[in-house]
Amino acid sequence: MLRNIKLTIEYDGAGYAGWQFQPGVRTIQATIEKALGAVLGQKVRLTASGRTDAGVHAKAQVANFRAHSGLKADSIKKALNARLPQDIAIKACQDAGLDFNARFDAKAKLYRYTILNSPDRIAINRQYAARVIHPLNIKLMRKEAKALVGRRNFKSFHASGRKIENFTRQIKRVDIKKGKANLIYIDIEADGFLYNMARNIVGTLVKLASGRQPPSYNMKNILKAQNRRLAGPTMPAKGLCLMEVKY
Amino acid sequence: MLRNIKLTIEYDGAGYAGWQFQPGVRTIQATIEKALGAVLGQKVRLTASGRTDAGVHAKAQVANFRAHSGLKADSIKKALNARLPQDIAIKACQDAGLDFNARFDAKAKLYRYTILNSPDRIAINRQYAARVIHPLNIKLMRKEAKALVGRRNFKSFHASGRKIENFTRQIKRVDIKKGKANLIYIDIEADGFLYNMARNIVGTLVKLASGRQPPSYNMKNILKAQNRRLAGPTMPAKGLCLMEVKY
Repeated sequence: MLRNIKLTIEYDGAGYAGWQFQPGVRTIQATIEKALGAVLGQKVRLTASGRTDAGVHAKAQVANFRAHSGLKADSIKKALNARLPQDIAIKACQDAGLDFNARFDAKAKLYRYTILNSPDRIAINRQYAARVIHPLNIKLMRKEAKALVGRRNFKSFHASGRKIENFTRQIKRVDIKKGKANLIYIDIEADGFLYNMARNIVGTLVKLASGRQPPSYNMKNILKAQNRRLAGPTMPAKGLCLMEVKY
Repeated sequence: MLRNIKLTIEYDGAGYAGWQFQPGVRTIQATIEKALGAVLGQKVRLTASGRTDAGVHAKAQVANFRAHSGLKADSIKKALNARLPQDIAIKACQDAGLDFNARFDAKAKLYRYTILNSPDRIAINRQYAARVIHPLNIKLMRKEAKALVGRRNFKSFHASGRKIENFTRQIKRVDIKKGKANLIYIDIEADGFLYNMARNIVGTLVKLASGRQPPSYNMKNILKAQNRRLAGPTMPAKGLCLMEVKY
């Protein structure tokens, strides 16, 4: 029986050259496809909600694949988890409608960026946060983030070098929370993200929140310019985590 | 000027054969002593509040050393953090009285054990929790833990093979909290811990909280027996973290 199976996947991206298959390097897609091949006795191709870059984590990436199999979904999940390395975990495995497509059916994605705002290093959980040494003004960050919400052209936050035509995306919300032990969480929910958009937005918020910028340098003007060079730096991959894909 | 300097140290124990120096293996003590030697230009010997075993973590281990140096404490901290690997971080560096001894002056230690109580693996934070698959009865765990509190003979939780004479310690509290995402935190504060005592106590609580033991198998009787074979298994090192040393 032809089935279409939806996987919800958690991974620690540190050991991988990103989601997408590339010859000669360790990727999350190739690692799971290899395990799936062994479990199902056939080659399958995964379709994810989107790629994540080298070093980026996921709490709940979603991918689907079609295969002929009589195995129960839960048995596939267990067999996969038994074969996968410790830094990839299948959180759910469910039959989906035959027309479900993890990429094209995604309505929104939620990314979280975690900043350690401290001059001091941390040892525990250092894998999941990027450090910013100078003190960040969170109120200013929240104020500037408001300009991002809505249906806008985000070309200023698109990594140069990748050719696409449509830079319009809709950011539904940007929530900035202070956590324990000098952590700051920046949650960005959008109907889609340009290449490096989340990390470039956070880099810009960090630049603005240092409080040393002239008044004309603000999120509104950066958006308006549609010029990557005006935005802040790309933040390190390790602070970024795909938290949820909404369908 | 002879000084006595107190360090507060965070570490991810995964890559180390424990705190204490042993020839030929990577230990936390040796790693910090080597960095200190380079910073101060002299050999120093660290005295920690106590050893932690291979794989055990610390949020705030405390150690002291004596040295002749004109460097400011904060400069020593910065120089150490610049030299130490990413899995060790100096959180504080302060001058202490010349008679301060991190080991003998410790009044109490707080250890936290983190359990992932789920049939499912996790990928993110897997380094800091030990998984228990069968459902644990937390109420039963809390009830049994009460018998541990007080000044008692903890010989039943002492790793066999290490000869000591006094098995009496005082447990001040055992707090068991449910966290997010199927995590359980077990905080144990005591004036001191026998070798493997924290991990053996947690292994026993886990065994009791499976709810499949006869009524005569309970914490009170296990303590009374003063026999390691009656207690539960030693839990994995990676779930254990030294949270605080009180002076």
